[in-house]
Amino acid sequence: MSIFSLITKPTLLLDEDKARANLLRISNKVKAQNIDFRPHFKTHQSFEIGKWFQEIGIEKITVSSIDMAAYFADHGWRDILIAFPFNIREIESLIKLAPQCKLTLLVESIDVVELIDHYIQNPVLVRVEINVGANRSGLAWDDPVKILNLVNVIQRSKHLHFDGILTHAGHAYHVSQKDGLLKNYQESLVRMQYVQSYLQSNQIHSVKISVGDTPTTSVVENLGKIDEIRPGNFLFYDVQQYYLGACQLDQIAVSLACPIVALELERNEIVIYGGAIHLSKDHYQANDKTTGYGIVVLPGEFSWDTKKAIGFVRNLTQEHGVIQLDPMWSGSVKVGDIVCILPAHSCLTVQAMRKYLSLNGEFISTLNCES
Amino acid sequence: MSIFSLITKPTLLLDEDKARANLLRISNKVKAQNIDFRPHFKTHQSFEIGKWFQEIGIEKITVSSIDMAAYFADHGWRDILIAFPFNIREIESLIKLAPQCKLTLLVESIDVVELIDHYIQNPVLVRVEINVGANRSGLAWDDPVKILNLVNVIQRSKHLHFDGILTHAGHAYHVSQKDGLLKNYQESLVRMQYVQSYLQSNQIHSVKISVGDTPTTSVVENLGKIDEIRPGNFLFYDVQQYYLGACQLDQIAVSLACPIVALELERNEIVIYGGAIHLSKDHYQANDKTTGYGIVVLPGEFSWDTKKAIGFVRNLTQEHGVIQLDPMWSGSVKVGDIVCILPAHSCLTVQAMRKYLSLNGEFISTLNCES
Repeated sequence: MSIFSLITKPTLLLDEDKARANLLRISNKVKAQNIDFRPHFKTHQSFEIGKWFQEIGIEKITVSSIDMAAYFADHGWRDILIAFPFNIREIESLIKLAPQCKLTLLVESIDVVELIDHYIQNPVLVRVEINVGANRSGLAWDDPVKILNLVNVIQRSKHLHFDGILTHAGHAYHVSQKDGLLKNYQESLVRMQYVQSYLQSNQIHSVKISVGDTPTTSVVENLGKIDEIRPGNFLFYDVQQYYLGACQLDQIAVSLACPIVALELERNEIVIYGGAIHLSKDHYQANDKTTGYGIVVLPGEFSWDTKKAIGFVRNLTQEHGVIQLDPMWSGSVKVGDIVCILPAHSCLTVQAMRKYLSLNGEFISTLNCES
Repeated sequence: MSIFSLITKPTLLLDEDKARANLLRISNKVKAQNIDFRPHFKTHQSFEIGKWFQEIGIEKITVSSIDMAAYFADHGWRDILIAFPFNIREIESLIKLAPQCKLTLLVESIDVVELIDHYIQNPVLVRVEINVGANRSGLAWDDPVKILNLVNVIQRSKHLHFDGILTHAGHAYHVSQKDGLLKNYQESLVRMQYVQSYLQSNQIHSVKISVGDTPTTSVVENLGKIDEIRPGNFLFYDVQQYYLGACQLDQIAVSLACPIVALELERNEIVIYGGAIHLSKDHYQANDKTTGYGIVVLPGEFSWDTKKAIGFVRNLTQEHGVIQLDPMWSGSVKVGDIVCILPAHSCLTVQAMRKYLSLNGEFISTLNCES
């Protein structure tokens, strides 16, 4: 019996073969360049999927919250970077977690460093976050004096150990195609190396550089002189990554299977049970500048079939999705059929759905939905 | 001790007084016009909050899925409309639910009507959904022959009982301010009355009209000749509604309390722990056409204080929110402080957060997070 015959409502399907292939390809690429691979687990959020990483020798991971760190520590992970500016309101959780594993935190202010040092009893590693242009968090790369001051405070602390500089060049998500990504990466790298040199010339030794995002890791051939990279999304990819040139459509490893509930063929549209609460409201911009919430493909024999791309999700409300259909497929769909949505942003779809169904019919839990 | 001192991570606060005032005002307005009030519970999704509706005599409700209908039926509700095109893949759930309460479904195709009639053993009411211009689901209002054909099939069925026509004029969310809303509503009403007249002139008697969305219900004084209205969002409102002119800022009854984790004052920005997985990625457009994910206010003594609006959420990633600060407030915030985000779209924020914290410190559960 096909997996699609079992589906009654929006269900997040996971094609394990595709995900494992993405993992192995990127892991091999990074290791071949003698760079530490510390994948970001905020994408899959699942200890079961984490085992696929362990199987190929990965021991260091990145997460985005203390809760996520605690979840993976409970499931045996012993080297965890929390790639989020440390939230001092969670100091109690940090005190509880610190003895369980080798923990690395992100800091950017003297106040936070001093507060952690005051309360904590166990050693923790800290990285200083650098803003190389994405303008989210981090100290500005072109103010190295401020960065050095912070590093000096860390060096003088009792329990905190400086472990290098880190950036997330999130503006990689706003450039177009390979050339733009490459240029963006080279600029980021030059800025990180500038900070590194400045610190080294001021008696701060062994300043490791950590970078990382999926488009860069996927597209840039030679990752250059960095120590660590931390992509997450590469495991599943999605339509945003596809239009950035980071993956092929048939490398996307998750899709949201949704029942068709209405045909509006006079408008070349169909309505599915599958809305903003399932896919998330994140969108992509296609090459022709139209925006959408997902690319719609038909089921195949064992997985979804990207050769049968029938349209895209034009609009999403709470539980409704409206699909604009390529007219050549309008005779191929009926109410009650399943279509598969390749999501605009797989991380947010995983977060919304909270569990996966594998293609052999097994549920895979996440942090938000333990089995 | 203030509620804000208890908060360690993103927390959805509910101001019960504001929500109850919104409920009472809208309920009184609708009842004064002799219109059935069937509020949409997809906004709050909580049996505990549902009791506030029972307390003022409301017995009929709207939901958006079979699961939500089953949840409220389990909590004693006996008259439930599922305002979503019936999904035939959930026929088993329908068969189970139908004996528990008076159930009304939405249909728009003969196939679906015949399938339900074939499988079900209990009587169910059905409404025919009409598309008056929002172009989501429903039969086109200007093809009354097709509508009549469907109604005739319903009339001939064994278990289905025709209960009128229904529309959701979702395009009310894309007009600007009061005049546009009024014009939009009058046009929708004329179209519904056209369908009603056509059916009545073809021996279909007592064709009830059900409409309903929050901007219309809030702004239009005289709701005209309709039988039922089904708004949901009015209970909490949000920044989208504020910019539509449907509410005041201090009528918004939920806010996401978030810790500040970094100050980027050289850019007049702050970074909070609170991202797309908490607020949702839905946005609003302000009067000056800038877009944002929420308006940021400071805590007051017992609730958040809308007189202290310090900026707006400019960008959201998975767990980070970036707030553009009104420069006059830049001296009033520090790392570790709590700010409160009035969300762009409260329904999606509730769905993402899955529970509320009341201002007196009690958690309120939802369908997705039972206590």
